Amino acid sequence: MLKECFENVKACVPLVHNITNYVTVNDVANVLLACGGSPIMSDDEGDVEDITAICGGLNINIGTLNKNTIPSMFLAGKKANALGHPVLLDPVGAGASALRTNTALELMKELKLTAIRGNISEIKTLALGAGSTRGVDADVADTVTEETLDAAVSFVKEFARQTGAIIAVTGAIDLVADDKRCFCIRNGRAEMGKITGTGCQLSGLMCAYLVANPQKPLEAAATAVCLMGLAGEIAKENLLPGEGNSTYRNRIIDAIFCMDADRLENGAKYEVR
Amino acid sequence: MLKECFENVKACVPLVHNITNYVTVNDVANVLLACGGSPIMSDDEGDVEDITAICGGLNINIGTLNKNTIPSMFLAGKKANALGHPVLLDPVGAGASALRTNTALELMKELKLTAIRGNISEIKTLALGAGSTRGVDADVADTVTEETLDAAVSFVKEFARQTGAIIAVTGAIDLVADDKRCFCIRNGRAEMGKITGTGCQLSGLMCAYLVANPQKPLEAAATAVCLMGLAGEIAKENLLPGEGNSTYRNRIIDAIFCMDADRLENGAKYEVR
Amino acid sequence: MLKECFENVKACVPLVHNITNYVTVNDVANVLLACGGSPIMSDDEGDVEDITAICGGLNINIGTLNKNTIPSMFLAGKKANALGHPVLLDPVGAGASALRTNTALELMKELKLTAIRGNISEIKTLALGAGSTRGVDADVADTVTEETLDAAVSFVKEFARQTGAIIAVTGAIDLVADDKRCFCIRNGRAEMGKITGTGCQLSGLMCAYLVANPQKPLEAAATAVCLMGLAGEIAKENLLPGEGNSTYRNRIIDAIFCMDADRLENGAKYEVR
Repeated sequence: MLKECFENVKACVPLVHNITNYVTVNDVANVLLACGGSPIMSDDEGDVEDITAICGGLNINIGTLNKNTIPSMFLAGKKANALGHPVLLDPVGAGASALRTNTALELMKELKLTAIRGNISEIKTLALGAGSTRGVDADVADTVTEETLDAAVSFVKEFARQTGAIIAVTGAIDLVADDKRCFCIRNGRAEMGKITGTGCQLSGLMCAYLVANPQKPLEAAATAVCLMGLAGEIAKENLLPGEGNSTYRNRIIDAIFCMDADRLENGAKYEVR
Repeated sequence: MLKECFENVKACVPLVHNITNYVTVNDVANVLLACGGSPIMSDDEGDVEDITAICGGLNINIGTLNKNTIPSMFLAGKKANALGHPVLLDPVGAGASALRTNTALELMKELKLTAIRGNISEIKTLALGAGSTRGVDADVADTVTEETLDAAVSFVKEFARQTGAIIAVTGAIDLVADDKRCFCIRNGRAEMGKITGTGCQLSGLMCAYLVANPQKPLEAAATAVCLMGLAGEIAKENLLPGEGNSTYRNRIIDAIFCMDADRLENGAKYEVR
Repeated sequence: MLKECFENVKACVPLVHNITNYVTVNDVANVLLACGGSPIMSDDEGDVEDITAICGGLNINIGTLNKNTIPSMFLAGKKANALGHPVLLDPVGAGASALRTNTALELMKELKLTAIRGNISEIKTLALGAGSTRGVDADVADTVTEETLDAAVSFVKEFARQTGAIIAVTGAIDLVADDKRCFCIRNGRAEMGKITGTGCQLSGLMCAYLVANPQKPLEAAATAVCLMGLAGEIAKENLLPGEGNSTYRNRIIDAIFCMDADRLENGAKYEVR
């Protein structure tokens, strides 16, 4: 599964339109190049429809949303829907402000989303209209653990059923589900949370994987999560004494750049529930 | 002093709201994570009050101010004031344009600022309504040297008295003062000026230190300056032949990530005047 | 030639005003510092004229243009023209959307441009009103090869004649031409295309070189292209196993930081046609 999804990205060179935040945008662009895709960023109302039209998919990230870019998200999303392109929503900080929560909910209502990727607090906010997002990080009380895993799996499947989107919840255990199956993924390292934007990067990656694997969106999304997590593991092993989160950031993107299909297949740790 | 301030940040995990420029925003986020804090960026009028409300402090940086983000600075600042959160102003380029100078002066008038951090040209512009900022760098004529140190110390103490804020002037010798005491800090390396955004990063750090050390704001601000300077020294020592400003940038953030309280206490070089 | 242009940048410390995209802005700032220049970013209508006035040159990059920054490009460009400062246009994505194409064409019409730097698809779009830009990358069909080189040289010289600007087309073979002479440069590595923003960085560099070498703009532009390409070669040699595009990005900027005039002179590979 992973091997095929991985090779399809390398063969397809998916062009991904990103409406994303200015905090992590450079890393999103470089990770898309690292995985074999190609990024373009555009967020003006007068530009986004043309740009989406030449791309294969759309990655909407509300991390630094504003009154100019919010309308662009809807315009680009509708255009992408009309063209049958995959659309991914990353609801950064949903639950932390009314604008973020409402914009994410409105995007879910107005657009056909292929996937929604966030931390558990953000996803709970969208599913339940409540949650306790701590800024852009998940609340500890919400964390998915081995003890709460069964309940979390049921929750994400149900939310996938309601939305018709693949739901990806990333954390210590990552969950990627449609209404029937949930990939529980145990790749990754806790230290990835000390780098800004690993979630944003994963959303970019996932969008490229969805574009290149239109027949298998769930497998594509799960493969992207395994890839990011495994890259985090490899990068951690490569970290030298005295190196911290800044170098770790570089090494994760490097590990994605240097990944091959066999290493990914062998390194992925997942089960389907 | 430094040890306690340092440990408080690690224990508190201060959440800092940044309205900052898009040039150095990623490094500001990563340095906040490196020091033990947590960053969130938000600059839309409809978003900033909610975001400030869930944070512990506000870092306002006018490096790429515009007509949309300027009102957000005032809104967020007033909300932070109402909640008793520390507010830091980094007047990037004050003196280089009327908009920058006037916005910084207006922010000083409308908000209760806990700290103002800039280079000597920016600070002189705010204090004297004049100065000769060379773009975003300090003018050579303004530089604080051993010869001009006494006068500079008097100047920053007086400006601290007038504003009620801690004044942090960074350069070859860093000054951090309230109206009574001035920390003169001799950490850091000249090569840090060859990296974009070390000042912006320090403002983010300082804000986290102010949040985590509410009883000792002057000590907190001075500790952040020592930390940044010492990290610059450690990173320079770790630099290999052929490495330049881009790798140096990463190694400074890494050094902050890897810092421990004893190393900071032992490496800090300061006197109080 | 290269040596003199290189030394002039080190001696002049050119201050460059950048109106650029938020994807690669940090790298543009760091590469300007690495080469010996000084960057300032400003894109608000109320700020750009003051900022341009204190700078030596203006770098306009339309990579994430929007309705707020487009008017600023015209305002700053006219001010820079009035002051006799070099103005460089980087028409990122011209051909990929009507807004990008039309904005670039309008900037060419309204401003006196010293140089235009883009990939072959972008430049063809501006010259012919057509082209097939693949997002922000050049279309393969347009690529300059040894076989198509003569035709490409004629094309850029003619476009330089029409516009009165130096035309720099970067790709496998880089072309830098005025109406009479074309530098054909064979520095650089294909892997540079796997890093976001090497083109944007080159535009920043080129602008600094134009500022510091007002008597020899063609040579200055060509030297900047050789410098960027040679840095890409040096950085590739320094790349260790397991390192990918993220570390490569850092090492290129490092190589520019560590460059000396002799190495540049000896490493440059160009002919004039």
